[in-house]
Amino acid sequence: MADSNTIRLRVFSLNCWGIRYLSKHCRERYAMIGELLNREEHDIVLLQEVWSEKDFLCLKRKLSSTHPHSHYFKSGVIGSGMATFSRHRIHDAFLYRYSLNGYPYMAHHGDWFGGKAVGMVKLNIGRLAAHVYVTHLHAEYCREKDSYLPHRVVQAWELQQFIRHTSSGADLVILAGDLNLHPQDLGNRLLRTYTGLRDSYTETAKFDGCEDGITFIADNPFINPKELCPFEKGIRIDYILYKGSGRVSIQCESLSTTKGSVPDHPFPYSDHEALSAELQLQTLTQQAGGDETRGEQDCAAGKLAELVDIVTEARTEVKVGLYCAERMRYTAARTGVMGMALLLLELAIAAVPWLALGADQPFPRASFYLLGVLCFAILITTFLLYIFYTMEVKALQGAEDQMRLAVGSLQERLRGFPLAQPLNPLCRPLDRQDPCPLEPEE
Amino acid sequence: MADSNTIRLRVFSLNCWGIRYLSKHCRERYAMIGELLNREEHDIVLLQEVWSEKDFLCLKRKLSSTHPHSHYFKSGVIGSGMATFSRHRIHDAFLYRYSLNGYPYMAHHGDWFGGKAVGMVKLNIGRLAAHVYVTHLHAEYCREKDSYLPHRVVQAWELQQFIRHTSSGADLVILAGDLNLHPQDLGNRLLRTYTGLRDSYTETAKFDGCEDGITFIADNPFINPKELCPFEKGIRIDYILYKGSGRVSIQCESLSTTKGSVPDHPFPYSDHEALSAELQLQTLTQQAGGDETRGEQDCAAGKLAELVDIVTEARTEVKVGLYCAERMRYTAARTGVMGMALLLLELAIAAVPWLALGADQPFPRASFYLLGVLCFAILITTFLLYIFYTMEVKALQGAEDQMRLAVGSLQERLRGFPLAQPLNPLCRPLDRQDPCPLEPEE
Repeated sequence: MADSNTIRLRVFSLNCWGIRYLSKHCRERYAMIGELLNREEHDIVLLQEVWSEKDFLCLKRKLSSTHPHSHYFKSGVIGSGMATFSRHRIHDAFLYRYSLNGYPYMAHHGDWFGGKAVGMVKLNIGRLAAHVYVTHLHAEYCREKDSYLPHRVVQAWELQQFIRHTSSGADLVILAGDLNLHPQDLGNRLLRTYTGLRDSYTETAKFDGCEDGITFIADNPFINPKELCPFEKGIRIDYILYKGSGRVSIQCESLSTTKGSVPDHPFPYSDHEALSAELQLQTLTQQAGGDETRGEQDCAAGKLAELVDIVTEARTEVKVGLYCAERMRYTAARTGVMGMALLLLELAIAAVPWLALGADQPFPRASFYLLGVLCFAILITTFLLYIFYTMEVKALQGAEDQMRLAVGSLQERLRGFPLAQPLNPLCRPLDRQDPCPLEPEE
Repeated sequence: MADSNTIRLRVFSLNCWGIRYLSKHCRERYAMIGELLNREEHDIVLLQEVWSEKDFLCLKRKLSSTHPHSHYFKSGVIGSGMATFSRHRIHDAFLYRYSLNGYPYMAHHGDWFGGKAVGMVKLNIGRLAAHVYVTHLHAEYCREKDSYLPHRVVQAWELQQFIRHTSSGADLVILAGDLNLHPQDLGNRLLRTYTGLRDSYTETAKFDGCEDGITFIADNPFINPKELCPFEKGIRIDYILYKGSGRVSIQCESLSTTKGSVPDHPFPYSDHEALSAELQLQTLTQQAGGDETRGEQDCAAGKLAELVDIVTEARTEVKVGLYCAERMRYTAARTGVMGMALLLLELAIAAVPWLALGADQPFPRASFYLLGVLCFAILITTFLLYIFYTMEVKALQGAEDQMRLAVGSLQERLRGFPLAQPLNPLCRPLDRQDPCPLEPEE
């Protein structure tokens, strides 16, 4: 493989919806997934929502001959649910846990317990260093009134940061997973524009799959179509993204998705559709360009300006989240103070004779204890919530600080461009094979 | 500065012990620290335990002319306490929060609330890309029976991972902070051997400071010398580490520490001593070597073998931590079950007549309620503890998995060396200026 200048790399991604005892036909679906992977022998398999390690180990056994290398990322209480299988040796793994990931008291949503994160494995494909990322962002439960939006934006921010900062030495970068972001959502634009990652769906030469590349489709029997409203047919939230470097040029030869059913099986692999991309890696004999033309400079400046806008938009979203988190923290504090006041009042009634009921009435012991317990419960709950919201505030402030720094730095670089002509915001990045067209020139 | 081939870089690090209202002479000490930094004009200032953002902002105002660039890292409930000031523009910042950091119920130790992390800022020094890291690891409260050891080992593991994976594109790497690790502690060896970072104290040409470079000294008036036992004079736990790359060679020209008192002031800057290092950066005209000699190969193999031993030792420590965490989780679960059984028994006594007291005795309402409350309190506490310990178990398992993967990968590379002669474990790394002598050849 490494002898030739061209390498073909097949990448697979699937959100497995693998909640033992809760997800429908979980065991049977894992068996089907195992069969598929065994048969197709993709180079790299990136799975999400493999919530049980037992299921991972079962898959690992089944794939031991086709995919001898694997890694399961652990995080949170039941997570991270992310697993990777590879035909190429994995020589390093690293996990970044997102600082924000929903609320523990929203147990029915479960995201907090899943410990959402981005995992990275480093592989050598021939003589090329591949950094492969898998992630799963916080779900969107209600698009109109999405209280988790700031969390998802911060996750997308941290995801792009993690990829940018850990991919300097990579010849190729691949990210796959359930981003829970529509193609034009803020987090998606932030991720793609900042990292220079390209979407296999929009870039592929050949596509075979659901209309518009949707991966969460109304036709899937595990999905309640009402939940998809107003997107009747479905939404595209699962992705395989990639980029090359000065040493490697990548083209997406083909992309396919499953289509809600599997031939000869009564149900599909999961509630999400699986993605399979075939990438063609072309090793370059010499480093890309050096003499930039004026047009290319304008392009880079246009991209920078676009990025400034996107980060500013993200910052606004984070500020909205910050306002909400601060308000929630204030509410928790106020409720706690009221609980404390009630407790003190009660103690005063019990201790100071003239505040108590007349001597002719018996002391209402049961009510006294119940009220006391209520006060204590309020105090403890509000204390825990106060701590939690303070951490949320800190994380949001931290992200906002970093975004402010990034905007300043981008604007500084923008000032370095000689702008005689107006920018052309529609042009493509400087060099499509550039490892990261928007990394500062170090 | 960038015109010459030689650049002088002065780096300062101090754990400020800045707990408002609790640390002694906090305000006065910050004023002294501000004066010192204003006067000395170090290129890069890395502070820890600046717990209050107000104090950071106050320092920022004071240093606005000497250090126009700064970043404050936010994490946890009151943390991360880490701040950086720079004379060179900071164009990017990124924070990695350690997955393990003590226990929230150990509130008197406070580490959990501090949200310990490693922060990175990217600077351009002349034409060189500097990645500068600041960190503060979990404190050691009792060396003989250190229940936090697995947490600190995992933190050191994640620290080296973070530095390795984010420093590929750097011309020079600097790490400073309070590691809470003695020079030969496992975490310290792990960090230095894996990253190739060099300790300014052992490498410096000129040293002026406390004996043996100690930074937490018995002579400091804020320290109770009994706490240092058995290290009568003090311990060295604060560090400035650095490494160059193929483009830059770094030498530590001088290192100095404060010595427990400040001339003309009644007390020192902090309970820790400050470190000041003067680094000389020599930009190299061509990339370092290419033709390895046999001796150098042996050296690299020796280092790899040493690293395998260190990671294996770390893995053992993490396994001990895992055993303890699993035991604690089991205890929490068992206590929870007992609380539940007690609650059910109580409900049965109240509901089933023949289980109750005789009809001649009144129902003991107060005891009934109190016992019920106790059961509920047990249930809630054990539930929260169970969740927490599960997260601890997951994090420890995750670290152990990554360590196992690393050992396998290192051994694989070790097999690639032609070993005719026995290894020489004492020889120095392959190339002292190598960006990371132990990074896999990508």
